Amino acid sequence: MNSKEYFSVDFKNDKLIFLDQTKLPLQENYIETDDYRRIAEAIEKLEVRGAPLIGIIAAYGIALSVKDIPETEVEEQFKKAYQRIFKTRPTAVNLFFALNEMQKVFDKSNNNRKNIYNLLLEKAKEIHREDIEKCAAIGKNGLAIFKKKSSILTHCNTGKLATGGDGTAFSVIKTGFLSGLVEHVYADETRPLLQGLRLTSFELERSGIPFSIQTDSMAASLMQQNKIDFVITGADRIALNGDSANKIGTYNLAVLCAHHDIPFYIAAPTTTIDRKMVSGKDIEIEYRGKDEILNFNGIQVAPENYSTYSPAFDVTPSHLITGIITEEKVFSFPYNFIQ
Amino acid sequence: MNSKEYFSVDFKNDKLIFLDQTKLPLQENYIETDDYRRIAEAIEKLEVRGAPLIGIIAAYGIALSVKDIPETEVEEQFKKAYQRIFKTRPTAVNLFFALNEMQKVFDKSNNNRKNIYNLLLEKAKEIHREDIEKCAAIGKNGLAIFKKKSSILTHCNTGKLATGGDGTAFSVIKTGFLSGLVEHVYADETRPLLQGLRLTSFELERSGIPFSIQTDSMAASLMQQNKIDFVITGADRIALNGDSANKIGTYNLAVLCAHHDIPFYIAAPTTTIDRKMVSGKDIEIEYRGKDEILNFNGIQVAPENYSTYSPAFDVTPSHLITGIITEEKVFSFPYNFIQ
Repeated sequence: MNSKEYFSVDFKNDKLIFLDQTKLPLQENYIETDDYRRIAEAIEKLEVRGAPLIGIIAAYGIALSVKDIPETEVEEQFKKAYQRIFKTRPTAVNLFFALNEMQKVFDKSNNNRKNIYNLLLEKAKEIHREDIEKCAAIGKNGLAIFKKKSSILTHCNTGKLATGGDGTAFSVIKTGFLSGLVEHVYADETRPLLQGLRLTSFELERSGIPFSIQTDSMAASLMQQNKIDFVITGADRIALNGDSANKIGTYNLAVLCAHHDIPFYIAAPTTTIDRKMVSGKDIEIEYRGKDEILNFNGIQVAPENYSTYSPAFDVTPSHLITGIITEEKVFSFPYNFIQ
Repeated sequence: MNSKEYFSVDFKNDKLIFLDQTKLPLQENYIETDDYRRIAEAIEKLEVRGAPLIGIIAAYGIALSVKDIPETEVEEQFKKAYQRIFKTRPTAVNLFFALNEMQKVFDKSNNNRKNIYNLLLEKAKEIHREDIEKCAAIGKNGLAIFKKKSSILTHCNTGKLATGGDGTAFSVIKTGFLSGLVEHVYADETRPLLQGLRLTSFELERSGIPFSIQTDSMAASLMQQNKIDFVITGADRIALNGDSANKIGTYNLAVLCAHHDIPFYIAAPTTTIDRKMVSGKDIEIEYRGKDEILNFNGIQVAPENYSTYSPAFDVTPSHLITGIITEEKVFSFPYNFIQ
């Protein structure tokens, strides 16, 4: 493998190969397994993270669980694997979607249990392939937002390490770069979990895109000096009116963009649009434990009894969002997604 | 000593006692010395930091250098100590101011070398006392900005650990708290060097002020939820038109305040006003080494060859500053400080 090439997940010779993201960017370790329990562990330990990517490896895990299993034991084994993978992460929507898809295939295979591994594997590969295609379409649609060769600021991690393909916001950046439209990428380190410093930096470096890392509070200084042409991030959840929840710090960037008259974009698949949410007011904010702020890499920085304020994400009101780039098209404000 | 009480610097029984700030907030170690070389080391190792505080211990160090020194060797010893302390930190204005004051006392003492230690010590104590008084006056003047019992957001470190007294912005917070006007303080962790997480947290805890720590990018979320009544920070340098340079991230907060219609204040002694600077455009931005971003609290997170953008401070234009609180009075926009 060329030192520049990397992948987050691959399936070859009846084995799943995944990149251990907990060691990035200092070490690039690939782990090969055909054991669904090892795959469940990878999700639990955050060796593989990013909602779409978790769904993909969960599907591969389910398929692998029935490989070489006697026909009479297939049902029991499938159930065991389903239960094991189901309990790995509580809030990953894509995980439950993928498990449900696998269950449907299993339920329809009553008369073909001999071939069940191949049927499940086919479905897993389909889930993977569809995600790759969606990422590519987002990237292609995103080309429309480039007015010139641009310097871009991004937040958190939205690339190959979070999805099956080239990502969401990252796919737009990469597609733009391959079209000669990217001057420089400024990546927020993204406290508290440093996804920008640890993961996006790695993706940019391996994609050959010129980049630098800054702490989150330095974005304003970059904008003040006219160094940013636009900001682009992903989204965790989008309401019908376009209000978007994403990694904490995203709303900060949207406000800064409004102040400096800089376009602010979100890139996400249409599955991110929550058809039950009328506006951002319906989105419940999740608060994280204090250790994410008081500790780092297991090393304590401040006493455990200190209080923290630690929302996992914030909600950017739609009027601050210039455009939402999906696999279908680029939507513009005002947003009126259909229920 | 009551467990709540603490000090950054004290002078007792012909010895300087200082709190080792590098161990905070997990350990509270006081170091006692009458050796100017140990004091120089404390400045170099950042055991004592904060521009005014550095000036104060530099002055005590100079005084201690001539204690118990035979009259014939006093001049040589003074020069040695001056040179040693002079080279500890290159950009600390207060350090050079204090050294200069000590030199003046020394120069005037030609006929009284027997008493030189007492003369120098008196000057050191005067520098210390004047700083305490200035901090107190800033705190008292700052009471005027409280419209009601308030929740306050602050950035970086501006208290007892940075000055001889109760600080600048921190003095306003503490004076307000002692008058029953502070509901809660939200302290930015202040990446990259975490002065908020390490030092301001300690000052708030020991002052009995209710507080919590958040990462810098969470400030916007707090404001969006109407949790902040005003923001107050210190300043490193203020131009004649009021444009203010301060720790990176301060400008970000000022923009957020403008967007959310929240008052944004700066507290600083009038010595911070640089009479040679007409506007913020004259202020040169210092860029820091990449290790401050690629490492977190001393632990390497990303490869050394990754690029960073790391300004040490940013400049907030005066129209975003609601008021500048000094030991003289509270100045309001538009600012026209006299050359």
